[in-house]
Amino acid sequence: MSERFFLTAPPAAGHAERVGDEARHLARVLRARVGDAIVVFDGRGTAWPAHVAALGRDRVTLDLGPPLAPAAPPLPLTLAVALPKGDRQKWMVEKLTELGCGRLVPLATSRGVAEATPAAVERLTRGTIEACKQCGRTTLLEIAPPATLAAALADRDPGMLAVVADPGGEPFGPLLTQHAGAVLALVGPEGGFTADELAAATGAGCRRVSLAPHILRVETAAIALAAAVASHMSRAD
Amino acid sequence: MSERFFLTAPPAAGHAERVGDEARHLARVLRARVGDAIVVFDGRGTAWPAHVAALGRDRVTLDLGPPLAPAAPPLPLTLAVALPKGDRQKWMVEKLTELGCGRLVPLATSRGVAEATPAAVERLTRGTIEACKQCGRTTLLEIAPPATLAAALADRDPGMLAVVADPGGEPFGPLLTQHAGAVLALVGPEGGFTADELAAATGAGCRRVSLAPHILRVETAAIALAAAVASHMSRAD
Repeated sequence: MSERFFLTAPPAAGHAERVGDEARHLARVLRARVGDAIVVFDGRGTAWPAHVAALGRDRVTLDLGPPLAPAAPPLPLTLAVALPKGDRQKWMVEKLTELGCGRLVPLATSRGVAEATPAAVERLTRGTIEACKQCGRTTLLEIAPPATLAAALADRDPGMLAVVADPGGEPFGPLLTQHAGAVLALVGPEGGFTADELAAATGAGCRRVSLAPHILRVETAAIALAAAVASHMSRAD
Repeated sequence: MSERFFLTAPPAAGHAERVGDEARHLARVLRARVGDAIVVFDGRGTAWPAHVAALGRDRVTLDLGPPLAPAAPPLPLTLAVALPKGDRQKWMVEKLTELGCGRLVPLATSRGVAEATPAAVERLTRGTIEACKQCGRTTLLEIAPPATLAAALADRDPGMLAVVADPGGEPFGPLLTQHAGAVLALVGPEGGFTADELAAATGAGCRRVSLAPHILRVETAAIALAAAVASHMSRAD
């Protein structure tokens, strides 16, 4: 075994525990044995090599080694997105996690179709945990509380480049060559932002950016924004 | 109705026909009526407004108007990709179509997991047709015959920027600011290209490019490459 596991509780004194379903999964599905080596991460940037120290019915105890060298930090990118539905939401979170996006804000818009209910937010969180395990990321994609367009815009740090995905905008790539700092990017729902919403965004200083020659689905626009930023800022470890 | 339909046979003298399953779909599922307005496209760059002229059991006749103004041509981007499996393949084709990628070459590699069988190629083609209908693209993503790495590299046009996705490479974005022409991008299988394959690619002039701070799944790397190119070259109509 050299699988990666997310720690729901922080480790203490070089030990960590997995209880309940997580313990059963490790013991029964993955058939872990005492002494097996795994990697655990806390979702906040730290990962440890670990060994299975004890296997109980509903509790697995792990001995942790010294923390591993830090993986790349998330990109300074906040995506505020009118969530798409079902599988497209799940896919979007997987891809945004792989691409290094730092923060996802579910955006409440006039034409939005999917509400960021607590159950939806929990699903998104599970999605980023799974993607982190797979791609080696140690910091979860932060799923922020749902926000209106006004709140998302008001919440941004000074110096952040703010952009709104809009088919009629300027190409996004060249803009990134002139800006190395943090980015806030807004993605509207299927059907787009209303004219009022778009005016509010540009009025608050957002640049309208075009991402592709065709109208993109919500999750495609979000992934394209993250990919464009990542391609300018990153180098994998 | 204002739906978009792909014409499997070229129109003649201002008329087109849909036969068999396509006719039944239009007549029974979508309940088309004589006089209904739709849009049809040939997958080679032309779209027409059309009216349902006659509805038979297995045949629908359409009257076509003059061609619509051309949509954006595909990006001069060829992606040679060691195909991922199942749903990830389907998603990849949908996203590459939306993002404007011109050509997809299924790449045969040492560690590849999915073979580009005729059935798989047909599935990919159906996938790009569906995505074209949805995003307004009138030229299909070209699904090229499967090729080895050597063949994909030998087949490229002079002047093409050739890159290979590699976590240790240089960031891809800045490279695109210096290159406005055609791009050939190679994506290896889960587990990556072998050292020999990577050496063959760089030996043939490929630049190694990094796309994100983490190891990407195959379909994510392909989509990220297309998004990076699209963000530099395009503006939607």
